[in-house]
Formats: sequence, structure tokens, C-alpha cells
Amino acid sequence: MLKTIEWTGSAVRLLEQTRLPMETAYVEIHDEKQMWDAIKRLVVRGAPAIGVAAAFGVYLGIKDAHGAFDQRLNEVCDYLATSRPTAVNLFWAIERIRRVGAAAGSAEQRKARILDECLAMLEEDVRACRAIGEHGAALLASLRPRTSEPLNILTHCNAGACVAVKYGTALAPIYVGVEQGMQFHVFADETRPLLQGSRITAFELKENGVPVTVLCDNMAASLMSQKRLDAVIVGADRIASNGDTANKIGTMGVAILARHFGVPFFVAAPLSTIDFSIDSGAQIPIEQRDASEIASGFGRQTAPDGVGFYNPAFDVTPAEFIAGIITERGVVRAPYVAGLAALRG
Amino acid sequence: MLKTIEWTGSAVRLLEQTRLPMETAYVEIHDEKQMWDAIKRLVVRGAPAIGVAAAFGVYLGIKDAHGAFDQRLNEVCDYLATSRPTAVNLFWAIERIRRVGAAAGSAEQRKARILDECLAMLEEDVRACRAIGEHGAALLASLRPRTSEPLNILTHCNAGACVAVKYGTALAPIYVGVEQGMQFHVFADETRPLLQGSRITAFELKENGVPVTVLCDNMAASLMSQKRLDAVIVGADRIASNGDTANKIGTMGVAILARHFGVPFFVAAPLSTIDFSIDSGAQIPIEQRDASEIASGFGRQTAPDGVGFYNPAFDVTPAEFIAGIITERGVVRAPYVAGLAALRG
Repeated sequence: MLKTIEWTGSAVRLLEQTRLPMETAYVEIHDEKQMWDAIKRLVVRGAPAIGVAAAFGVYLGIKDAHGAFDQRLNEVCDYLATSRPTAVNLFWAIERIRRVGAAAGSAEQRKARILDECLAMLEEDVRACRAIGEHGAALLASLRPRTSEPLNILTHCNAGACVAVKYGTALAPIYVGVEQGMQFHVFADETRPLLQGSRITAFELKENGVPVTVLCDNMAASLMSQKRLDAVIVGADRIASNGDTANKIGTMGVAILARHFGVPFFVAAPLSTIDFSIDSGAQIPIEQRDASEIASGFGRQTAPDGVGFYNPAFDVTPAEFIAGIITERGVVRAPYVAGLAALRG
Repeated sequence: MLKTIEWTGSAVRLLEQTRLPMETAYVEIHDEKQMWDAIKRLVVRGAPAIGVAAAFGVYLGIKDAHGAFDQRLNEVCDYLATSRPTAVNLFWAIERIRRVGAAAGSAEQRKARILDECLAMLEEDVRACRAIGEHGAALLASLRPRTSEPLNILTHCNAGACVAVKYGTALAPIYVGVEQGMQFHVFADETRPLLQGSRITAFELKENGVPVTVLCDNMAASLMSQKRLDAVIVGADRIASNGDTANKIGTMGVAILARHFGVPFFVAAPLSTIDFSIDSGAQIPIEQRDASEIASGFGRQTAPDGVGFYNPAFDVTPAEFIAGIITERGVVRAPYVAGLAALRG
């Protein structure tokens, strides 16, 4: 199966995601500067993947340090934190490595502990995504228990193997289900404006041998009206205590249409995505992105000069439209306030 | 106001729609071969506009004919009918001109009658679209009778001035409303895969001085959730006796979302769009279009090779989601079977 991040023993091997879907290339990262650049240029993307990549970036930056180890560690950590200033998971991962590196011991001992921590983070990510996949696959299998036909799943944007080390979140139930002998046909919304669905989701499903059909975002209702879908699964950027879910723009519309057509709509996300500090989605600010993504998103201008653009990065799907939230500790159902709080314990 | 088709006295002046939105160019058509080419290459598009253009094409083809007038007339008519073999309005317009030209009289008399018929068709189109605009503007004004704020209208695809001689259908209520002193802000879905919304709707509204904001199709739900819309208006390709409406892919999803968010959803179309030979939308076949429109619609490949594509040209919005159908004879409300039949009389 496609791996986004691998430790070779002396370097980090990253899938070069900026070249997708035209080329499956890998790049070897040997020092912290190359890693900073890879994170900045979106060679590696998605919260879990960025965190693991940054942790290894710290290790690459200190592994040859002589003397003044603490100073060097802090320099490298501070430097890598500037690669994507809005990625919360990046800071979390860097601080985790900084703490491990700050503990007592010789420089060589501390270097070894940092590498162990990086490898542990990589394994944790694979384990969490695999657990999401197992809970999700069981849930999907229960939708049509007595069929040998492929299950038809719609997804929006990309929350697959490419955002994590392996498996991903929204696509983990598919990949783990396939390992268990289940069959799927995945429909991938292309996901305007940046086309993560057609560029990345379609690519990784195809690479991993899962049949996939790409459609424009406005075609999902047509598909649902023909009763061709068994479920929708999407990822999440942030989930409020009550289950309201911020995800890529367009997700809310899919959820409302799925409800209308009686198709169950699931969110798959690690517990780290749940923000217990907010009560509801109303507290999630929506970033407006640059007009050029709509006006000339394909390398060619497709809208006239002098008009306005509406380009929100996310929308918030109200919890009432979500049939279940699939986490590494199991599937949470409504009422979400109680269900999510119980998982936290 | 922008005019798609004009008779100069010796030639037909067409807005060069293939260059939109980057360039506002016009092309003068002097003979039937140039008109065939203009229809074929989508320089002129939309059922009403194609019909009028083809009629003038016949005139340009026979105006210098000497002897064997009937033979020449039939040759030109048959030739122009091959320019877009699926455009019903094209055949209708050509047959209308053929009948006029076949009537008794000298060649010069018959040429003059053909030109008169072309000019009558042009005027009929302007009159019908203007009538749709007047009924629609009154309807929109009634939505917020006591405000001087602009009305916020969402539209999908392009059913504006560019598909007709002037005014168009879905945008006619906007243009006529502006003439009457109303104010609007139009939100235009970009309308994947061919982007008629961002390329053409945004262009013509801007050219005609109406403020317009472009959004990706999957952002409409976000806009509606913020209560920023007063109404949705779309055109129609074909309306069944019961009001079910076939229109550009994505229309049905917009209609279902509009119902969810309490935004009235209107269809604006001439009576000629109503197909009384079919009882419901279930009898309307949906054409699947070429995968390349999704995979590389902007001159650059954006989806990997070896995956499937779902690319229906249209969807059918059930009549239950339509708050009113705006025609040149007035606004029809549910129950549509009775309302549409009454208009026919």
C-alpha cells in the first residue's frame, strides 16, 4: 500500500504530493532545511502527516549536532515551526520532540530518544488510522450484511492515506475493509476549488487498487437520486463538543443532500480532531481564501476581471446530519455531547 | 445592454462567445457558411439564439440567389440544419423560414418575406424574454416589498442574455428589474464542468452593470446557511407537463438545498420549453458527456488516468421543489399540471 512517509534508516522518504496525479514520485529528505521546504511547498500535507514529518525534521536537524545540544535543538524546533504557521499539529509534534530532547542524558542518548519518539509517532499514526479503519469497515459491512456486491461510497476532498502515514481517516475504512476481503466502489467529488478529490483521492485509491469514479461536486445529488450510494464518508478539520464538524467547503451540502436521499453520512477522524474547548460549530471561524483559486484555479483565467468571489475554505456540518463519527476508539452516535465526552475519558 | 445577435442591414453581428470572459469581441456574419461555422463553434449558443441565428443564416444564403430559387433555399436550409444536429430549436427555426420562402411570389418578394420573418423572430424573442423579465421582476419585488436594499439572487449555469437575443430567461427578471429601478446582487455558481456561470453569467452581468459574485458550486449551501439569499432563479432545458424541470447538472441539488434553507427556488423559461408530450421528468433521458470535461476541462489534466468519470449533462428537479415557473404569460404555481395546461390554451 502507498506510504506517504517512511524512515529509511538515514533519511525520510516522502511521497511528492505536488506532482499528483500525473507522477508518482518520492523525495528523500536528509536535513531540516529540506523538511521545512517540503512542508512549506505541500510536498507533505494533512495534519497527521505534517506532525510526523516535522518530528523527523527535528531529528534530521540535530542528529549530527556537536556541543551546545540544547541550543541547537531549540533552533531547529523554532525553525521548523515557521514552515506552516497555521498547522496546529505541527506545533504539537515539535513540542513533543522538544520535551523528549530536553530530558537529562548525553547528546547521543538524547538523539537516540528523539529518533525513538519519531518512530513511535509514526507507529501511533498508523495504529490510530488502522483502528479508525477497523471500526469503519465493520460499520460499513453492517449496512448491507448479506451482499457480495461492492459497497458504493461517496467521499469529498481528501482524507485518505495522503494526509497521514498510511490509511488516512475517511478512506481508512475502505483500505482496511479491502484487506479484510470487502469490495468497494468509491465516488470521489473533485472538490473545487483545489481539486483534492480528483487529484489526490482518485490517485491514491487507484494506486491502492480500489475502483474509483470522479464526479464534479454538483453531480452528487444526481448520483444519490439514482440510489447508487450506500454511504458517504468524509474527514474532519475540527469537531466541536456537540459533534458539529468543520470540513472542506461543500461537505455540509453533501450532508444535507444525503439526508434528503436517505444515505447515511459518516465522519471519520482521530480523537485529536475533537475540540472540547468549543460547544458548537458556531464558534468555528471560517477562513476566506484567495479569489484566484476560483478565477484561475487551473492555470487559465475562467472568470472575468472586476467581479466578486466567495471562497470559504470550510463549512460546518450540523451534528444532526451526521449518522456517526468513526474514531480510533469506536463509532460515536448521537447524542454526541455525551458520546464524545465518554470517549475522552 | 449587451446584444447577442443584431441585424446590421446587410450582415448579422454576433457576440463572439468563445472568447468570453477574456475578450468582448463581435463577429460579422455575411454568408451561410460563416453562420454554419459560428453555430458549430458555439460562437452563438442557447436554444433561442441559435434559432434566430440560423434563420438569418438562411437569408444570407439565398439573398443573392439567381434562378432555381427553391432549390437554393432547400440546399441552404439542409446545410444549416447540420451545424448542430441535436438543437431542436435550430430545426424549428429553419423549417419556419423554409415555409415562408416556399410561398408563391417572385424570388425578390420571397427574399424580402424571409428577411421580414427573420426580423420578426428576433423581435419575438426579445418580446418573450422581456415579458418573462417583467413577470419575474414583479415576483422578486414582492419577496421584500419594503426594502431599498439589493435583492440577493443565486443562479446556476447561464440562461441570460447570451442564450437569447437580449435579456435571456433566468436573468431577464434581473435586467428588467434594473430597468425599473430595482437593485440586485447576483451570486453565480461557476457551474462545472464547463464553467458557464463564471465564464458567461458573470461576464454578461458585469457588462450590463449588475454586481456579481462568483462561487464554486459546492459553496451555495454555505451562502444559504448565512441567510444571504432572497431567491434562486435558473433556466430550463425542458419542462414536463407536471413541472419537473431538466436543467444543467447541479440544478436539482441547489433546489433541494434551497428548500432546506427556506429560499424560494424559481424556474424562468419560455412556453416553448414545456414539453406537453411527457407527463413527468422520469421520461427525460439524461445524456452522459465526455470524461475529458472533468479530467482536463481547463487545458490541464487534473485527474489520474485509469479512473472512471460520472458526467451527466443535466438533472431533473422535481416540481415539488419549484416555488414558481416564470413564463412570458405569467408565473405558474403548483399544482403545475393544471397551471401549465391553462397557459397553453
